Amino acid sequence: MTYCAGILVQDGLVMIADTRTNAGLDNIAVFKKLHIFDRDDGVIALATAGNLAVSQSVLNLIDEGLPTEDEDDVPQTIHSTKSMFEAARLVGKAVREVYKTDGKSLKEQTGGFDVQMLLGGQISGRRLRLFHIYAAGNFVEATDDTPFLQIGEHKYGKPILDRAIAGNTGLYDALKIGLISMDSTMRSNLGVGMPIDLMVLKRDALAPDLTHRIERGDPYFTELRDQWSEALREAHTNIPLPPYKS
Amino acid sequence: MTYCAGILVQDGLVMIADTRTNAGLDNIAVFKKLHIFDRDDGVIALATAGNLAVSQSVLNLIDEGLPTEDEDDVPQTIHSTKSMFEAARLVGKAVREVYKTDGKSLKEQTGGFDVQMLLGGQISGRRLRLFHIYAAGNFVEATDDTPFLQIGEHKYGKPILDRAIAGNTGLYDALKIGLISMDSTMRSNLGVGMPIDLMVLKRDALAPDLTHRIERGDPYFTELRDQWSEALREAHTNIPLPPYKS
Repeated sequence: MTYCAGILVQDGLVMIADTRTNAGLDNIAVFKKLHIFDRDDGVIALATAGNLAVSQSVLNLIDEGLPTEDEDDVPQTIHSTKSMFEAARLVGKAVREVYKTDGKSLKEQTGGFDVQMLLGGQISGRRLRLFHIYAAGNFVEATDDTPFLQIGEHKYGKPILDRAIAGNTGLYDALKIGLISMDSTMRSNLGVGMPIDLMVLKRDALAPDLTHRIERGDPYFTELRDQWSEALREAHTNIPLPPYKS
Repeated sequence: MTYCAGILVQDGLVMIADTRTNAGLDNIAVFKKLHIFDRDDGVIALATAGNLAVSQSVLNLIDEGLPTEDEDDVPQTIHSTKSMFEAARLVGKAVREVYKTDGKSLKEQTGGFDVQMLLGGQISGRRLRLFHIYAAGNFVEATDDTPFLQIGEHKYGKPILDRAIAGNTGLYDALKIGLISMDSTMRSNLGVGMPIDLMVLKRDALAPDLTHRIERGDPYFTELRDQWSEALREAHTNIPLPPYKS
């Protein structure tokens, strides 16, 4: 399992991902799911959920280049795309390429070809964008009306994002709310776990303002968990008891 | 879709269910999912999720009696079971009976035989109990360690239950927290909707303390939603911004 969220506000982009992967409850490991391509002309971040083998194949393909039709063509990579839209199309193409080789066997043996990705970032002279890429290689984009996208175990952490995130939410407020959303998810689902990787990218900055891994026992995150728990407790205590009578 | 929760605390039992059913987004209806059997010697409540046709067949069977092996046997019904355990076995048997007739067709045409139920209540001289009954007719019981059970769209509303419900939570506090959990679910998932049915049963009272339907626009529930939203906003505003530096 996995939980990743991307939040696109006026001031910039936040991307957060956990690092737990599991093949059954008895086979848990830590794998980075937030991959940052820091280019001279911008930055692209890719968060992955679903089958880890598929995700890693996609990453390899976009890093090294997809097979070209003509041998003389220079393979396109994530390091050379001219826009975020082109990058999203490249990732989608890579997903379909992996489907060609692994799709049939995966469907037969595991019941599905399961991969979802969030792609966010900005290339010089182009817009800051955030995409959700599906297993079919197609994708949708975050907009002002829906400024966040989630992949993986998205339900536990959705209520807080639904309530607290708007287009004009401050960039580091968005990070904080994203971390609360991650905490709610980790608390209710063992498939999502520490450490947490994150990236904050200011609009038009073209380089990350912050990339960080929150390790288990991190003082701020521990305080956030405690404060949030305490605030929730206080919040429901302050609501009067139901007045209903039979 | 559906969301139902059962909460078993020291003082008694709370059961809450929404009423929305849908066969596609364009075919939404209101159906009661919380069914209360108020007997002279106690009370049994059954909340249902999953395929509505299956749920209704199960309800009919436990109400009218399952087929007996010997024609002279009196069919057992939910009105005559001597304990909650016997009631849970009866419901499980009814689920398997429906599976016998509908299971194959449902699996072929809709991909699954999908039904889950919460059964709670108390019969005179026996314990107050809460069970989660699965599509195979088997069941598990809520315990002090895990005093709540959920069926249907359970993920959105789980974080608040995980944090706020303990065995010694007050009975009407449990109802309030259950309603917050329902609100979080309804806000994030269109498949769960008003009105909300609820039952509160005090331990050893053998008759409901409260049965009630919360309709759209209910003043208390509206206030609970607003207060909860406001408290969450305040809670995340009060948490300091992340201190991380690259």
